[in-house]
Amino acid sequence: MHSFQRQRTRELLEKKGVAQAIFASEASVKWLTGLSTPVQLGANPFAGGPPLIWYDSGLFTLIVLDGYAAGMETFSRQPDCRLQTYPGYTVTEPIAGAGGLAAALRQVLVHAHPLNGRIGVEVEALPAFLWGLLQKSGDVDATPIDHWLEPLRMIKTAEELDKLRQNFALTDEGQAAARQAVQEGKREIDVWTEIYTAVHRHLGQRVPLGNDCIVGHRQANVGGWPLDLVIQPGDSFIVDLSSMLHGYWSDSCATYYASEPSAKQKAMHRTVADALDFAVSLIRPGVVARDVDSQVRQFIAGAGYPVYAHHTGHGVGVTGHEAPRIVPYNDQILEEGMVIMLEPGIYFPGETAVRLEDAVLVTATGAERLTHHDKSLP
Amino acid sequence: MHSFQRQRTRELLEKKGVAQAIFASEASVKWLTGLSTPVQLGANPFAGGPPLIWYDSGLFTLIVLDGYAAGMETFSRQPDCRLQTYPGYTVTEPIAGAGGLAAALRQVLVHAHPLNGRIGVEVEALPAFLWGLLQKSGDVDATPIDHWLEPLRMIKTAEELDKLRQNFALTDEGQAAARQAVQEGKREIDVWTEIYTAVHRHLGQRVPLGNDCIVGHRQANVGGWPLDLVIQPGDSFIVDLSSMLHGYWSDSCATYYASEPSAKQKAMHRTVADALDFAVSLIRPGVVARDVDSQVRQFIAGAGYPVYAHHTGHGVGVTGHEAPRIVPYNDQILEEGMVIMLEPGIYFPGETAVRLEDAVLVTATGAERLTHHDKSLP
Repeated sequence: MHSFQRQRTRELLEKKGVAQAIFASEASVKWLTGLSTPVQLGANPFAGGPPLIWYDSGLFTLIVLDGYAAGMETFSRQPDCRLQTYPGYTVTEPIAGAGGLAAALRQVLVHAHPLNGRIGVEVEALPAFLWGLLQKSGDVDATPIDHWLEPLRMIKTAEELDKLRQNFALTDEGQAAARQAVQEGKREIDVWTEIYTAVHRHLGQRVPLGNDCIVGHRQANVGGWPLDLVIQPGDSFIVDLSSMLHGYWSDSCATYYASEPSAKQKAMHRTVADALDFAVSLIRPGVVARDVDSQVRQFIAGAGYPVYAHHTGHGVGVTGHEAPRIVPYNDQILEEGMVIMLEPGIYFPGETAVRLEDAVLVTATGAERLTHHDKSLP
Repeated sequence: MHSFQRQRTRELLEKKGVAQAIFASEASVKWLTGLSTPVQLGANPFAGGPPLIWYDSGLFTLIVLDGYAAGMETFSRQPDCRLQTYPGYTVTEPIAGAGGLAAALRQVLVHAHPLNGRIGVEVEALPAFLWGLLQKSGDVDATPIDHWLEPLRMIKTAEELDKLRQNFALTDEGQAAARQAVQEGKREIDVWTEIYTAVHRHLGQRVPLGNDCIVGHRQANVGGWPLDLVIQPGDSFIVDLSSMLHGYWSDSCATYYASEPSAKQKAMHRTVADALDFAVSLIRPGVVARDVDSQVRQFIAGAGYPVYAHHTGHGVGVTGHEAPRIVPYNDQILEEGMVIMLEPGIYFPGETAVRLEDAVLVTATGAERLTHHDKSLP
């Protein structure tokens, strides 16, 4: 369970001369342990801070609220893993919160090697009081290690691909519901509740679900959350759907129509579909991200349309937007095992818009589509 | 707009001798500014950290991602407020993230009074790298100010009560849908999607929505998120519903039945309803929280039932669980203007359960109910 991720992290930290480290970002903790906690209601009011990992000479100790330990038995049985919990909800005394988390970290440090010298710290995610605690525990200096794991996270393991495939199948269900739901006179929020219902009835449990669910006649019609805007005759409708399942984010986009699309909309839609096929055809190991970006933008421009202002694509994994970004500046070379979203679009603000998006897995020789939703014209 | 909150905070900081401070918790920032950012998909991937407030000699500067500035024009026009934004999403260069947030804070500090001595810091919420930045900006020492605002937050302003009333009306809609939805053969998740749909169709936009949506025959039947458990004949069904609207959380609970409730369930339900009415009757200024807790527990015990293990109630506001907690240890005296949830229940694990919950506003002479959902037996 995520042992390959820990092995690669160990190799990286050893190479960098970091023997002790603390991880505090949601992405790092998920990627190293498989722990995925609910996000939909914001931070857990009974937690003292984010889940942490104390790394010490090859061992990973997850420090987490007791309520989250139930799913982590497999993790804690791994030879390179430890689990340290702290209590959350109680009615007999004030909720310990940060004090409970600090006590758990202190408990872990009792068994740690003496703290000396450089300690790797995710300083962007670690709360200041915990850094203060580490400083009191030895003669230490922080080496910021934020973003160190991001390049490693680009290459997905078989276990991660399995989670991603399940999740793309889930958003495919949501897109199928969206295609049925988009009808004149309904509002964006009505379409959204139908998508939400289909995804949740299919899965049988709650998942975080986003994102864009908008009529094409919005002035800013690249994206947005659903409002009570009514679908008008002649509207296109963009549904860009992401869910998080088993800690991994899916993504997908399609464009639907309230009535028979106009000739202009049909031409736009065919161009975007062709641009997406073209983008997929470019993906293989050895290709440079910015070259994919540039060629897809040129495809849209060459067809006589304004070029979209957003990225051409991005990676997905424990976060919804991650490396490799398919953008103009990125000289990242694509490698087998990356999972990349590709999402060209054409926008006429306040009038109509089309965007289509697929996920691809970079294979040894090219690309395999992981999304299978219907993106055709009606 | 939240000027009373800032005035009370100014008075508190002056009394404590804190001339400069940094707030980083979601609750403090919302309460001081009215800023409410979406939580449903987790942290914004284009933000460099949480929104911050730099407090300096009476002035409050909100430091926030540019995408969140749109709703804050009224705030930034207040004489005691400033707004400092930083850029988020871009495709022409790497997303600045933490670097962008740090640059914005540095920009604010340029115009600040010289940093010297004690600085109030929400050390539980402030990321370590920003505390590092402050340390480099002067000869400073952190005075932890986490939880300082919580006692102030207990008393709601008229503006806050207006938001809360709107939000309780919204969860009333959700409860009405739940009463319709609970039927034999449906699953918990089906009931949930009907509640979700009703709330969102009513409001016309997305809101964070929780919490418990469970069949009474669960082994742990106090609460939980909906799963694909099927409603059986004879089941009770608990719906504990919270939403966040304009930054403020509502709450409410009711118990429904898949078929004609049994004599045992009817007796349980009537006892819980009476316990709730009794709890409401106890609320008035001058009453001590733990006494309310104790008397409601005694009411349940006196009727011959096992006493619930959870709180009797809690405050709501910018967080879903806040002071005053109605629990055995709390010697907080209730005051006019507090908004308190009361939620007695009776649980037979693996068999059946009943919980009913109302919100009350503490008035000059007693309590006014703010929730108006139907909690009666069918």
